[in-house]
Amino acid sequence: MKKILVFQSDFGLLDGAVAAMYGVALEVDIDLKIYDLTHDITPYNTWEASYRLFQAATYWPEGTVFVSVVDPGVGTDRKSLVALTKKGHFIVTPDNGTLTHIKNYVGITEVREIEESRHRRADSQYSYTFHGRDVYAFTGAKLASGKIRFEETGEKLCVDDIIELELSEVTITENSIKGCIDILDVRFGSLWTNIKREDFAKIGFKYGDRIEVIIKNGPTLVYNNRVTYGKSFGDVYVSEPVIYVNSLYRMALAINQGNFAKAYSIGTGRHWTIEFKKVD
Amino acid sequence: MKKILVFQSDFGLLDGAVAAMYGVALEVDIDLKIYDLTHDITPYNTWEASYRLFQAATYWPEGTVFVSVVDPGVGTDRKSLVALTKKGHFIVTPDNGTLTHIKNYVGITEVREIEESRHRRADSQYSYTFHGRDVYAFTGAKLASGKIRFEETGEKLCVDDIIELELSEVTITENSIKGCIDILDVRFGSLWTNIKREDFAKIGFKYGDRIEVIIKNGPTLVYNNRVTYGKSFGDVYVSEPVIYVNSLYRMALAINQGNFAKAYSIGTGRHWTIEFKKVD
Amino acid sequence: MKKILVFQSDFGLLDGAVAAMYGVALEVDIDLKIYDLTHDITPYNTWEASYRLFQAATYWPEGTVFVSVVDPGVGTDRKSLVALTKKGHFIVTPDNGTLTHIKNYVGITEVREIEESRHRRADSQYSYTFHGRDVYAFTGAKLASGKIRFEETGEKLCVDDIIELELSEVTITENSIKGCIDILDVRFGSLWTNIKREDFAKIGFKYGDRIEVIIKNGPTLVYNNRVTYGKSFGDVYVSEPVIYVNSLYRMALAINQGNFAKAYSIGTGRHWTIEFKKVD
Repeated sequence: MKKILVFQSDFGLLDGAVAAMYGVALEVDIDLKIYDLTHDITPYNTWEASYRLFQAATYWPEGTVFVSVVDPGVGTDRKSLVALTKKGHFIVTPDNGTLTHIKNYVGITEVREIEESRHRRADSQYSYTFHGRDVYAFTGAKLASGKIRFEETGEKLCVDDIIELELSEVTITENSIKGCIDILDVRFGSLWTNIKREDFAKIGFKYGDRIEVIIKNGPTLVYNNRVTYGKSFGDVYVSEPVIYVNSLYRMALAINQGNFAKAYSIGTGRHWTIEFKKVD
Repeated sequence: MKKILVFQSDFGLLDGAVAAMYGVALEVDIDLKIYDLTHDITPYNTWEASYRLFQAATYWPEGTVFVSVVDPGVGTDRKSLVALTKKGHFIVTPDNGTLTHIKNYVGITEVREIEESRHRRADSQYSYTFHGRDVYAFTGAKLASGKIRFEETGEKLCVDDIIELELSEVTITENSIKGCIDILDVRFGSLWTNIKREDFAKIGFKYGDRIEVIIKNGPTLVYNNRVTYGKSFGDVYVSEPVIYVNSLYRMALAINQGNFAKAYSIGTGRHWTIEFKKVD
Repeated sequence: MKKILVFQSDFGLLDGAVAAMYGVALEVDIDLKIYDLTHDITPYNTWEASYRLFQAATYWPEGTVFVSVVDPGVGTDRKSLVALTKKGHFIVTPDNGTLTHIKNYVGITEVREIEESRHRRADSQYSYTFHGRDVYAFTGAKLASGKIRFEETGEKLCVDDIIELELSEVTITENSIKGCIDILDVRFGSLWTNIKREDFAKIGFKYGDRIEVIIKNGPTLVYNNRVTYGKSFGDVYVSEPVIYVNSLYRMALAINQGNFAKAYSIGTGRHWTIEFKKVD
């Protein structure tokens, strides 16, 4: 029996909140194997929560249960979900957009609403602000340990009815492709776009090409330069920018051993557009 | 046999110090299940160490051994303790106040002084600055693995003789209750007070009430406003303040999706008082 | 069978990169025991990676497999190595100096070059920037789980041929000893030098002595004062500086409950020299 439980949250690791969730899960089953995805999601940022699940979940063994607690609506009537993905992973999360990327890029087979009246930690009736501990860790642990089956978590919902965040379009013309900056590879300051490797290839770009890059924040031009398309950072000089295929097979932009986002004060989101254009 | 060992420290996770403690523990017993409470206690801050144990320990399975290393007196003649709590957890720590909250809010059944001559890692005789590795991780691992029993850790001490930090009083009048800001929910900037839910209820406050809040830093007024008492953050608008019962059943103050502590530069400690007062 | 895998990287824990490596390793063998050394190595800093392995690895059980991914040359033709240390640990790392301290202070028995054609995750052929996930975690997990033997990782290399960073010399005169500041105990701001306890003792320094300390950044004098040599921090007043033997038996300099590095803006590296001199 696989018994893997993976936590993600915006709680940080500065206090005892994550440890309380671990304790609750181990009280359910002391033999659970518990790991972390990250607890440093920007507070309340469901987009990041959704993206990080997409970035990491597919590499885990089938049957792994992910519990993601980025929950600005805690204590309101937002639903609590358990989703089964097409890769065979379970995701326990509030219904607030956290499933967006997994739904669109991996697929969701079935989704159920957690019946809180049955799946809530004892003695937590006056606690309205920590469902991560009282509902999600508890339910995730019961599911991962096999104490309840997926079908017992609650009523089946229609997959189309869960809340989704808006994903940006990618526009292709004869000699250019335009998308947005979805997220940063935070530590290294690299820009990760929503443009897939295959779509980028349709323009005819090849390794070694110099490509025009145009980055805008809404209508404001922020960066416009010619950049080498390399297999990896080592294809350009240290401190030189490079276009590359990231570990999720999306197009990305970095400075070799530098920090592109800091260098040009670049942010993320749908209004941060990026265009790759053939040089005449 | 339960074999859970949980570490807490002010070492951070930036270097190899925590990993050295893990290694020492696994050398004692490779089958130990090792977890972290937090390693981001503010350096030397025994109050925080004490509070975080209180925040997280009770959720863990009986028999769990906590090793807490916030140890400004390392290498002096301060004692090293193992406490057994009324919930059946063990806590290994220097005798410096780290047991304050557990003693007062959970209870300590028995406490023993670690006999360092017997419970010290081999070849550590010239090391006077890392008892976390040489004494605490080592002793905690032996206890968690069952290689020694609690009685073998050292001589029994009187529970009343261990060092305690001073806890603040709560003052109740007919139409107000006054306490202090014990600690922050750091990540979200919420204020956690020392006022219990039951005591707050004695004033007759009910969900939905507008309550006068007065925060002072010593004699200086820092915040004075009327705030809604809600079940959760969703009971007020985004960016509005809210009084709520936190996950430890103490009264707390937050800004919904904001950061109260940053907004008004609020700190913690006995001189940071907070009063909740009925509005006429 | 021991099955311990320990990760180190400069990825941070802010996103899903480390979790992706965990997933890959658990896909290889779900019973692996996976731990972290640190993921907060300064980006691209192979010196720190090398030092942290030295600081922590020796405390772990024999057979432990360390996977260290600080890899500024990812995607170039730099080699990928598995080293067997004299303490019986394995280290999987790019060949970029990360083995420097272990080689010089612990010893390397044998080193092999990973045959990437055999030891690469399936479907990772278009990924040139995340060998941590696609090669190192994968190979480390196979080795730790016993699915491959050390001999099967690849061809044996000459230990003398692996890349080393330059270590600084220590100079001893009749009444002084001079070395450099190798690294910080980051969290507490203490300076860790490359001067060994035994060499320091040769000058005749004893606990309680007042010793002249001279710190220079290249030719620039940064600190010059008389400091007490203590067994531990408690041997001086709170906020007073102290010379002590650190947990790796090297000489170190701290401010008791303060932060020496911040107080005097002190950095690390070969050009940051420190001299301890007898006071007449």
